Amino acid sequence: NMQLAQNSRGEVGLVPEDYIEVSYIVSVDVKTPTPSLGNVAASDLSFFDAYAPASTPAQNQVMHSCNAGSVSLLQATNGNDPWSAWNADSSGGSTNNWASNPEGTQTGKSAPDPWPPVSHGHPQAYQGPGAEDDEWDDEWDDMKSTGGYAESEAGESGALQRGGSHATSMKISLNKFPGFSKSGPELYLLCKQLVKGKDRLPIYMGEVGPVWSYPETQLDCVVADPKKGSKMYGLKSYIEYQVTPSTTNRPVNHRYKHFDWLYERLLEKFGSAIPIPSLPDKQVTGRFEEEFIKMRMERLQGWMTRMCRHPVISSSEVFQLFVTYKDEKDWKMGKRKAEKDETVGVMVFSTMEPEAPDLDLIEVEQKCEQFSRFTKSMDDGVKEILTVGHEHWKRCTGPLPKEYQRIGKAFQNLSSVFTSSGYQGESALTDAMTAAGKTYEEIAQLVAEQPRKDLHHVMETNNEYKGLLGCFPDTIGVHKAAIDKVKEGDKLVAASKITQQDKVTMAKRASTMSYALQAEMNHFHSNRIYDYNRVMQLYLEEQVKFYETIAEKLRQAHSQFTTM
Amino acid sequence: NMQLAQNSRGEVGLVPEDYIEVSYIVSVDVKTPTPSLGNVAASDLSFFDAYAPASTPAQNQVMHSCNAGSVSLLQATNGNDPWSAWNADSSGGSTNNWASNPEGTQTGKSAPDPWPPVSHGHPQAYQGPGAEDDEWDDEWDDMKSTGGYAESEAGESGALQRGGSHATSMKISLNKFPGFSKSGPELYLLCKQLVKGKDRLPIYMGEVGPVWSYPETQLDCVVADPKKGSKMYGLKSYIEYQVTPSTTNRPVNHRYKHFDWLYERLLEKFGSAIPIPSLPDKQVTGRFEEEFIKMRMERLQGWMTRMCRHPVISSSEVFQLFVTYKDEKDWKMGKRKAEKDETVGVMVFSTMEPEAPDLDLIEVEQKCEQFSRFTKSMDDGVKEILTVGHEHWKRCTGPLPKEYQRIGKAFQNLSSVFTSSGYQGESALTDAMTAAGKTYEEIAQLVAEQPRKDLHHVMETNNEYKGLLGCFPDTIGVHKAAIDKVKEGDKLVAASKITQQDKVTMAKRASTMSYALQAEMNHFHSNRIYDYNRVMQLYLEEQVKFYETIAEKLRQAHSQFTTM
Repeated sequence: NMQLAQNSRGEVGLVPEDYIEVSYIVSVDVKTPTPSLGNVAASDLSFFDAYAPASTPAQNQVMHSCNAGSVSLLQATNGNDPWSAWNADSSGGSTNNWASNPEGTQTGKSAPDPWPPVSHGHPQAYQGPGAEDDEWDDEWDDMKSTGGYAESEAGESGALQRGGSHATSMKISLNKFPGFSKSGPELYLLCKQLVKGKDRLPIYMGEVGPVWSYPETQLDCVVADPKKGSKMYGLKSYIEYQVTPSTTNRPVNHRYKHFDWLYERLLEKFGSAIPIPSLPDKQVTGRFEEEFIKMRMERLQGWMTRMCRHPVISSSEVFQLFVTYKDEKDWKMGKRKAEKDETVGVMVFSTMEPEAPDLDLIEVEQKCEQFSRFTKSMDDGVKEILTVGHEHWKRCTGPLPKEYQRIGKAFQNLSSVFTSSGYQGESALTDAMTAAGKTYEEIAQLVAEQPRKDLHHVMETNNEYKGLLGCFPDTIGVHKAAIDKVKEGDKLVAASKITQQDKVTMAKRASTMSYALQAEMNHFHSNRIYDYNRVMQLYLEEQVKFYETIAEKLRQAHSQFTTM
Repeated sequence: NMQLAQNSRGEVGLVPEDYIEVSYIVSVDVKTPTPSLGNVAASDLSFFDAYAPASTPAQNQVMHSCNAGSVSLLQATNGNDPWSAWNADSSGGSTNNWASNPEGTQTGKSAPDPWPPVSHGHPQAYQGPGAEDDEWDDEWDDMKSTGGYAESEAGESGALQRGGSHATSMKISLNKFPGFSKSGPELYLLCKQLVKGKDRLPIYMGEVGPVWSYPETQLDCVVADPKKGSKMYGLKSYIEYQVTPSTTNRPVNHRYKHFDWLYERLLEKFGSAIPIPSLPDKQVTGRFEEEFIKMRMERLQGWMTRMCRHPVISSSEVFQLFVTYKDEKDWKMGKRKAEKDETVGVMVFSTMEPEAPDLDLIEVEQKCEQFSRFTKSMDDGVKEILTVGHEHWKRCTGPLPKEYQRIGKAFQNLSSVFTSSGYQGESALTDAMTAAGKTYEEIAQLVAEQPRKDLHHVMETNNEYKGLLGCFPDTIGVHKAAIDKVKEGDKLVAASKITQQDKVTMAKRASTMSYALQAEMNHFHSNRIYDYNRVMQLYLEEQVKFYETIAEKLRQAHSQFTTM
């Protein structure tokens, strides 16, 4: 098998697959206590504050410029326990799996839970000069799909694994980003001049508090009709999905890697303010298997639906391009434009305009901690459901139906023994016993099939939420860092690091960030209530049907026995 | 704890419990191929036939007398595989557990399946001279009760364990029967003069073939009202059950040991012709625990019901004594008389009078082999149900409800996280999710309790049948031995071992034995059809209720979610 590859000098060519060594850069060493996200930001500001802990050289590569371009927030994120910033505040009783999870120390391919998505490189950089981007294909990522829950790793992995595998993909391994840049919220907080433009994102005061501006009709997209395509004279083949937005009702075609490109753009642009859930797993093996394609399509649909539901994302230029591009040329031009967008990372807050009075720092801090506590608790709750659901799935598809089958077989075997008795008037009993035995075999079938009908949805929804919740530590980390910055305001003024005006601007901008966080939390809550209501209803409805079907089958089996 | 014990010289006295060593005599060594019951009988007749294999001295202790008194058929039974006589004929496909069961080689207390009930001693002999029999108490047997199925040994044990433990009980260990006697069917076949008396047992030709004479109204007994009694100034306490027969409606009291005495009498008298199922386990530990007493009573009730249903047993003098004795004196006199009954063992066939023409040997042999095959197959089928049921019981009372409980807790936990969101309009969802969680906890409870309501009856019935079927190899072995004897007729006549008239008598008596076997098989079949019909109906009825209850609970849980 030949693969398109690029060497460290940027030269591209076909090389045997075996020659390619995919390496992962995981820069976190959790064996020593690692500073929390908030602390990292603080150390980034060590030139402001002599009391800050000494920072490592790598942590000091801060680009203090308003026009830093595509600086990914995620690079500032650090390691093992994204919730550690709020550990002291986290709701008592719930254990923090992540803090004590030694898996985080692993590097390389086999790391089961490469969380969080560290070291996202500069996305523009991974297209070699002149290299047709279409040629960077899915095959680069050799993470295996988890498929159903029964086969997936234990609760800890799941959605985060998807996000994680994504983050540690080939793009990094090619090592084309010599200077990883990172930034804290100061980029926005202390920016001299904010970009004003059409991208204005208003935040209103609604009944529940700050809310985004919602469109009158919600965009909806259908992902359907997966088709196999090929190029390079059949050497490379791929699956193309049809995406049809409710606005134009005109389908556009997208490969998984296009979704991935969109994800990267959204993460880069909105990730500081809005949790952007990861896409479903990449995978090479069995990538064209019907079951896998169906599952991926279902998950891409879920992802698109969630994106469509978000007023900020669905109305963004890049998202609109994705769902409504007119032709190849339109798509290519749009892509290039999106990749050149400079209002990314924390700078997205510069486009947000809350229509409400500024909040004081105490209120900002309280909100931030409240959301952190909640998302942490919910993350625990969701993981518990996934773990329990995973166990239940295994039992329902493994030992339980096997047992019902054995019960059915035992009844039928005894029935056929009875048939051999030679005693007259045996058949009424043996017919009924055989029927009862067959009924238990049918029940075995029902039991084994049921999880795909109900538990599946509970698992998918919670998996989605696990992915979403996994984004919050970053989002909240940015806010926490901003708060720390504002708190240092007086000290910085006294040391003549910033002006009094800078300090006032910082506080005002932290207030804007807080409004954005509140709007996002309110969006999250209303979606959460809708999603859980829906999935619980669906689950219970199917469960009722399941038990009723079994009862009815048994009632029929019972009626075959003669009353005496 | 002091115990009444008797030493080898027959002296009785109170000794510390720890001093008593209960030893078991298991004389079978299955490491070397053991002769089947049929062969044993053949070797017992080695003085008739020079071609017979050399027999061990113990096997030669044949008492060739018509009035041998209480000679237990069971002593002739031998070890490991009671079905081996028909192995070649046994239905293909079903594995013969017993033939390859190495457990049979074990001796001592821990032998898990002491089958068959070997070496039943002479029942009269175990009452020391002058020793009040009431003082030989249950405590002598230290076999533990199996209680529910969940705690019992794997499928192999169960009912046979009861019978087995019974057989290897203290009575043997005291070693008071220096000369174990044993006999084959020749005792009856060649007996010069048959006892004629009121005990005449007619066999009629019914629709299904030979049948016992059934009474117009069937005797029924209620075992109820267990009461704790004590004697020896409170040193010894016991449980007394009230037995009320439907004929007199006058309750009589019996301790477990009285049931045991009755069992011994019935086994001794009818065991060659009628399978007498063992009583439920004896046990010392926790013997007064409510649950145990309830279970034992239920099983004694089951045993009594089965005995009542049998026309030969229920009308026998000893059984009538047991259920209708008038006072202590009546009981004691009746006991003594029963123990002196000489028409026991194979001699019971001498009281049977088939009202049909004699059968030829081929027909006798065919019937015998048919019943052997059937009982062997059914034994396999019943054991399969017990094994599967045991597994199912464990799952339903162990991991399954635990899982439902965890599902319930996970829903409730997530619900309480949601409650902490601070978002308005949360309560509709959280109330519903809490209710759903509680519903799954209730389901956990239902699942755990269900086996006692339905599977319990399936297990009890099959356990009873396992016990019954375990008696057939002996019964059938006697017939097989008789057939072998008749086959040797010409040879024996030629060798002047028997007369021509003896040969004719033997054939006629073998025919009588065959009628008895057929009557018993027809009784067995009709009871079996009734029992399995009943227990399957009961099981399915409860299963329907179970699934309907769950469906209804889930329907209620579902209705609490708001429709959107």
